[in-house]
Amino acid sequence: MSRKVSVQGRFAYEGLDRIVHERARLSILTSLATHREGLVFSELKQLCALTDGNLSRHLDVLKEAELVDIRKGYEGRRPKTLVRLTRSGRERFIEYLSELERLVKDAQRATEAGATPLARPHRLAADPA
Amino acid sequence: MSRKVSVQGRFAYEGLDRIVHERARLSILTSLATHREGLVFSELKQLCALTDGNLSRHLDVLKEAELVDIRKGYEGRRPKTLVRLTRSGRERFIEYLSELERLVKDAQRATEAGATPLARPHRLAADPA
Repeated sequence: MSRKVSVQGRFAYEGLDRIVHERARLSILTSLATHREGLVFSELKQLCALTDGNLSRHLDVLKEAELVDIRKGYEGRRPKTLVRLTRSGRERFIEYLSELERLVKDAQRATEAGATPLARPHRLAADPA
Repeated sequence: MSRKVSVQGRFAYEGLDRIVHERARLSILTSLATHREGLVFSELKQLCALTDGNLSRHLDVLKEAELVDIRKGYEGRRPKTLVRLTRSGRERFIEYLSELERLVKDAQRATEAGATPLARPHRLAADPA
């Protein structure tokens, strides 16, 4: 008498790419998607509220995965590190987003359906019958 | 001549609760939000495409944080573990979702604005001027 609620992996969200999903990296990638011209290190640090160490560490991961491009140069005599999304970074971010939207829709449907009666509630006995 | 792009923490998404954000737990919570009557262990395992070990481990974290309620009982003579969202779990999940929607909107705006010209591109010289 088991209910048919299970569809293999229906809520697995395999498309939530682990590299992108980590919160600090998600923050960095959204900042960069919003600033196509790129952002310098100090701007990213501020927008994402990250420490130097954390930002560096996550940028290394993103660069290793070829999601961002990092160029060291100068503005006048001051060293400046410019970070931009790569083309494949942009594509992977968009793919990630579409999976995220699927999750948000599933969850919204669930949280809005709050008042509907239950189809068939689970009943558990405290002891074997 | 620095641009004014930085608003402290504008893209930090502090509301992305670390307990909820982890991918497997996000999958578990969305499944549970969608099934208010609760889900038994084997159903959750299937919906989230998780192994027994992984599901147990993440359920421990969610229970510890009081996001889920776990009841061990029987259906007939068969032992059955029923998992449900708690009231506070539901509230925290809804809060998390609203931050997630903010991120999705920011990102959509960014990715749809693909073709607009750059306001003021960064220029880096290879060497100090």
